[in-house]
Amino acid sequence: MIEEAVDNRLSIIKSIAERIGEDKLRLDNELLLEYSRDRWAQGISSIAVFFPETTEDVSIIASFLYDNDIAMVPRGSGTGMTGGCIPLDKAVIISFDRMNRILSINKSQMTVTVQSGLILEDMQRAVESEGLFYPPDPASADICSIGGNISENAGGLRCVKYGVTGDYVLELTVVMPDGTVSRFGSHARKDVAGFDLKRLMIGSEGMLAFITEAVLKLIPLPESAISYKIFFRTSQDAVLLLNRIFMIGIIPAKAEFLDISCLNLIAKKFAFKFPEDAGAALLLSLDGSKSEIAEYEKKMKPLIENAVYVESSSGKSQDKIWELRTQISPSLKEIAPIKINEDVSVPIDVLSDLVRFCEDLAAELGLVIAVFGHAGDGNLHVNFMITEEQKDQAKKGVELLFCETVRLGGTITGEHGIGIAKAAYAGIRLDPVVLKVCREIKRVFDPKNLLNSGKVFYGELHERHLTGRII
Amino acid sequence: MIEEAVDNRLSIIKSIAERIGEDKLRLDNELLLEYSRDRWAQGISSIAVFFPETTEDVSIIASFLYDNDIAMVPRGSGTGMTGGCIPLDKAVIISFDRMNRILSINKSQMTVTVQSGLILEDMQRAVESEGLFYPPDPASADICSIGGNISENAGGLRCVKYGVTGDYVLELTVVMPDGTVSRFGSHARKDVAGFDLKRLMIGSEGMLAFITEAVLKLIPLPESAISYKIFFRTSQDAVLLLNRIFMIGIIPAKAEFLDISCLNLIAKKFAFKFPEDAGAALLLSLDGSKSEIAEYEKKMKPLIENAVYVESSSGKSQDKIWELRTQISPSLKEIAPIKINEDVSVPIDVLSDLVRFCEDLAAELGLVIAVFGHAGDGNLHVNFMITEEQKDQAKKGVELLFCETVRLGGTITGEHGIGIAKAAYAGIRLDPVVLKVCREIKRVFDPKNLLNSGKVFYGELHERHLTGRII
Repeated sequence: MIEEAVDNRLSIIKSIAERIGEDKLRLDNELLLEYSRDRWAQGISSIAVFFPETTEDVSIIASFLYDNDIAMVPRGSGTGMTGGCIPLDKAVIISFDRMNRILSINKSQMTVTVQSGLILEDMQRAVESEGLFYPPDPASADICSIGGNISENAGGLRCVKYGVTGDYVLELTVVMPDGTVSRFGSHARKDVAGFDLKRLMIGSEGMLAFITEAVLKLIPLPESAISYKIFFRTSQDAVLLLNRIFMIGIIPAKAEFLDISCLNLIAKKFAFKFPEDAGAALLLSLDGSKSEIAEYEKKMKPLIENAVYVESSSGKSQDKIWELRTQISPSLKEIAPIKINEDVSVPIDVLSDLVRFCEDLAAELGLVIAVFGHAGDGNLHVNFMITEEQKDQAKKGVELLFCETVRLGGTITGEHGIGIAKAAYAGIRLDPVVLKVCREIKRVFDPKNLLNSGKVFYGELHERHLTGRII
Repeated sequence: MIEEAVDNRLSIIKSIAERIGEDKLRLDNELLLEYSRDRWAQGISSIAVFFPETTEDVSIIASFLYDNDIAMVPRGSGTGMTGGCIPLDKAVIISFDRMNRILSINKSQMTVTVQSGLILEDMQRAVESEGLFYPPDPASADICSIGGNISENAGGLRCVKYGVTGDYVLELTVVMPDGTVSRFGSHARKDVAGFDLKRLMIGSEGMLAFITEAVLKLIPLPESAISYKIFFRTSQDAVLLLNRIFMIGIIPAKAEFLDISCLNLIAKKFAFKFPEDAGAALLLSLDGSKSEIAEYEKKMKPLIENAVYVESSSGKSQDKIWELRTQISPSLKEIAPIKINEDVSVPIDVLSDLVRFCEDLAAELGLVIAVFGHAGDGNLHVNFMITEEQKDQAKKGVELLFCETVRLGGTITGEHGIGIAKAAYAGIRLDPVVLKVCREIKRVFDPKNLLNSGKVFYGELHERHLTGRII
């Protein structure tokens, strides 16, 4: 019965391929399975994967599938952390792998126009060679796609000073689920014509329309930078320093926090020594003109003289300082078969309350909880390092964590999105009015509910669809 | 017949007043007329004006009016330029005049929480006294309300470096047209939970829901600033300098352009002399730390040595330089009974194309067109200074101007919104897909179409409603 339905769909899918080119369709099982997976879990295998090369291709694919009531899932490069690009039902994947070109860099307009499948780092390299700068830098910059970044409103390390992906999007070329093509936004820096559909698309987790092209705002490349590695007795001291830095008018380009569990794990994995009385670490990067940096150094001195240990460097050697940040993930992998990574976000003044809460939670539940992340904007990655047996405890912990972040005025996700992973918890953060409005807006774009359906607002019945790691 | 309908409405309106307090309702004709007016035109008189003091008041008012199918129009302080707060039909005005309190300033969170009727400048003064800074600064800062700023996504002079109102909104307390209360966004700097309804509200021109409270992001107050008044032979030279400044990595806090017509008008009105060979002027403000400013001065020197005339100053005396900017509007008033002020916005690299277009247009139509505004972000104010008899010519000119800005990759409004004034032209900038989606989103929030209806997407039949200046 289901097989039959699939067969009918297959004939339609093949007719689309005949239209846009046979080489743009793949049906081999291994690839189907691979393209139904993200960093978080393995979804059920899709029926087919299309590899469009132009907006027109996407438009043709969508219109045919939509007319024939076939579910569609857009896919960047599958680096998502919450199952946003995982099919929940037999669906067709539209992959943007081949829409990876830089269409133009306009120096005097300070913009870059890209296809949405372009890898972030490729774009950043290209504009930096022109003396321009695109700040958003999720950890997966070398493998994540710009379309995925826009769909999740990706952040990264530099958001403190430079903001998130959404702050750099000027215009989007979109394909509606039924195949109609439109443009949201414009090349103008300021544009208040009509409701802000461009902003509505940003962070909509691929549920409203396909993003095929984007015009992104660029800024001048900072002249210089200095990095600090600072160890503190307590995590509270680390957060306190951060507040002080803001208060004297310095907005760091990066401000990353590592708790004692992270430090211990890294020390173990990389045979790395840190001061015995260190209870937390802060990695800072301050950028700007040369004279600014000189001034920052002066201003920083009195603030850090009481720290347990301070190391600073500029130029290339800064990479050594940031090694500590890149060592976190591999170190975490070591110690537990399952890592549940939550990217909660709170107001910066209650950051240390959240850190303390995590410490207490770990003790109370008898779990290893490693906390690190973007302290500068209150967006912390709370990692439950668990075994199969500890899943229920972790589940309890995650729920308590989410309730606490919301109580503190924050949110259950700062940059990863809700996707499937957090869908069951959406109600903790979003009130019934918001959920209702979001569902109805989804209907406005996608009346048949065919585009990446069942995510974010639909907490029910997810786990049965999935074979991967889920709590 | 209509009278009767009005009477029925009146009894309902009075019953609301009994509930929330008689003193929160005004029915006297003079006030009704005054509260149906903005900077652009006089609307038809409303039936009643409510002055709620809390979110609960707004919720009660809305729910009663909505249940009884009575049209509602939210009103900040009526400083809008496009008729956004003008009733198009017999409606009840909900004024936020009395919701003008600062609820809290949180220094370590760097946020301020306000009621939406608060006057912008009152808030700015309060946070600056705490060493904090809220950059958006529309020219009407001393009389405009923050709720109005959010509804129009107001800009101002500092957007080049600091962005617009929307970039500082963290959370909104909203009352849906039917009276339900909700919160969009959170206190967290990064929040990707659900569709970005907060961003959808920003710039929605009061058509989706009432904004009663807002949590706004603040930044550290810049230490120092320097201002420049620079005269150039041609407007092209002015724009060229601006490009150069960006390219060497300086983002000015303000960058205002004045064309030759503006200069002539100011010279006439204020008996002010400017260099004979001057064809345009640029006013710049560069802010930052003291050492940055020193560095900026060094970097600026070679760029401006060929200008016709340069004057620079720091500290209090900067106000003298910015006088030239404030003198524009009073000077314009002098020369023509009617001023049609369009705030078109284009990509920064084609700014001089737009200026040249306006010069040609003025010659072609035989009209005085004065161009000034926010050159730094491509948002120019193009003023048609006309007489009653020239209205048709001006109308033609406006349409040509809008088509050209869109052709250049820009938009028909950078900060004033579409409201009623530009509704007939919305189709020039927004394609049918966008218009359709916007109308349907309006329905999601307001199924009965009672809240500030007939604006933005409804180009038809506006003028008959209005008695004021319209082209």
